[in-house]
Amino acid sequence: MDIPKFSDIEDAYMRIEKYIHFTPVLSSAAINQIAGCNVFFKCENFQKVGAFKYRGACNAVFSLSDEVAQKGVGTHSSGNHAAALALAAKQRGIAAYIVMPENAPEIKKKAVKGYGGQITFCKPTLQAREDTLSEVLLKTGATMVHPYNQKEIIAGQGTCALEFMQQQDDLDIIITPVGGGGLLSGTSITAKYLNPDIKVFAAEPEGADDAYRSFKSQELIPVQTTNTIADGLLTSLGELTFKVIMKNVDDIYTASDVEIIEAMRLIWERMKIIVEPSSAVALAIVLKNKEVFKDRNVGIILSGGNVDLAHLHF
Amino acid sequence: MDIPKFSDIEDAYMRIEKYIHFTPVLSSAAINQIAGCNVFFKCENFQKVGAFKYRGACNAVFSLSDEVAQKGVGTHSSGNHAAALALAAKQRGIAAYIVMPENAPEIKKKAVKGYGGQITFCKPTLQAREDTLSEVLLKTGATMVHPYNQKEIIAGQGTCALEFMQQQDDLDIIITPVGGGGLLSGTSITAKYLNPDIKVFAAEPEGADDAYRSFKSQELIPVQTTNTIADGLLTSLGELTFKVIMKNVDDIYTASDVEIIEAMRLIWERMKIIVEPSSAVALAIVLKNKEVFKDRNVGIILSGGNVDLAHLHF
Repeated sequence: MDIPKFSDIEDAYMRIEKYIHFTPVLSSAAINQIAGCNVFFKCENFQKVGAFKYRGACNAVFSLSDEVAQKGVGTHSSGNHAAALALAAKQRGIAAYIVMPENAPEIKKKAVKGYGGQITFCKPTLQAREDTLSEVLLKTGATMVHPYNQKEIIAGQGTCALEFMQQQDDLDIIITPVGGGGLLSGTSITAKYLNPDIKVFAAEPEGADDAYRSFKSQELIPVQTTNTIADGLLTSLGELTFKVIMKNVDDIYTASDVEIIEAMRLIWERMKIIVEPSSAVALAIVLKNKEVFKDRNVGIILSGGNVDLAHLHF
Repeated sequence: MDIPKFSDIEDAYMRIEKYIHFTPVLSSAAINQIAGCNVFFKCENFQKVGAFKYRGACNAVFSLSDEVAQKGVGTHSSGNHAAALALAAKQRGIAAYIVMPENAPEIKKKAVKGYGGQITFCKPTLQAREDTLSEVLLKTGATMVHPYNQKEIIAGQGTCALEFMQQQDDLDIIITPVGGGGLLSGTSITAKYLNPDIKVFAAEPEGADDAYRSFKSQELIPVQTTNTIADGLLTSLGELTFKVIMKNVDDIYTASDVEIIEAMRLIWERMKIIVEPSSAVALAIVLKNKEVFKDRNVGIILSGGNVDLAHLHF
């Protein structure tokens, strides 16, 4: 699989610009004081469907030819990618077939249904998800849209940094959370193209640290078991995202759930915005590695804001 | 007491502009669809100290002559006004003496202390609060700054609508919550000056509906007992704010706590921003009186975002 180029990201932006929100960049004097550096937050929690995932899904859906598109798109996911794909498909007026484990949270099922996605439930194993999706794709002729390990997805996610570096043109460092690596890959391509001197870091929960281990060992090591509240970051890197990350990313840091919750609380309390645990990992690593970030201009992508208000971690 | 004029609000804005945040106006396609009108939210939950109160406090503090100011300022409050006055005083480099009931929530005490306020505790009765404040003022020579029934406070709060109507110049209706009436009074002066055709409405919780009853009976009726989660709106109108409101305000609506919580949840879930219950009352009345607002451009001031995350109402 080809690594996307910066021009793919520019093309993606032209393709999706009218469908997405141009999200704001916020900062907090109180957080800067605590962190000892200038932190700029790109608020993808305000993106449509409440997460950056809508950028990649939109690019994938609108990249399809009319002939292919009319048969719909499909994926297996219980998270933001499912909702994002459902809404992107709705925007194009085509079907979205979403395979979800039968034990997925009600709130996630409701979101996908709310955006018009057609859900097929399966047993909660990866094997069952893949088998069920294969059946659905075979029956419908729909096109599979991968949550991260796909060129169009990476290019779509890379449009976030494109906006960010235009809104804040003096960033020394840019940090994203890493799960499957779509956001990190896209961000790294944009950031290094626009400013070869910028550092691109990734933030990962200790309880799902396959990217950290893969990066350090220079070998793709999928995660075996996961244990973290950062439920958007449970997946492992794919072959394509791993390749981009090894080429572009300067370092990967990890944070514990306690540190993640503390950072999340700081964002909620000081900035009055709602972010999901996965979004708080980047601030957690800034706060625990202050010497690395001291006095620098640090850009953090807040990846999403979808939390179940009835089950908060505070 | 004189009713503030629009020129007082312009003066206030010149005085405080460099100390306050110019807060954003946000909107949500999902909420517009549910409400059946176009709602624009002025985000004073992002204001310093997390509430519009900082505008009035700043104006009061920076209106004082150097000679008077150097003896400090004082108030009795356990809410956002106390924190706002403490920070405004800190900005001017003077003391803030805050009288608080000894049973005030820890989180409020912490906020006031964090901004450098000097707290004197008293018994939790209005009499004790007023007596204690008198003693403190006598001893220190500090100037009393009222939370709402004071010209400088009203003029300061009126700067919020000044920004709002510049950011969104086609509002048909503007709605604020009403407690003591400082924000409502200031908003009404600005709004009616800039656009005599605009409607100015107030939103009040059923469980503290003195403004509603006073407005309808055209007679100032202080609240006797209160019972609402909108803890920023428990106070009664003052003589000055009542006078402004009778002159400028078009109508006052009330909402129940159940309706307030539902509106608050909608804001949190759909907009991914944190607002306190008092801020959600305006959206609650829009949702329960849809025929009044149908297809109009409705401006809502989200008054603040200070909630105790350990004790949410969801």
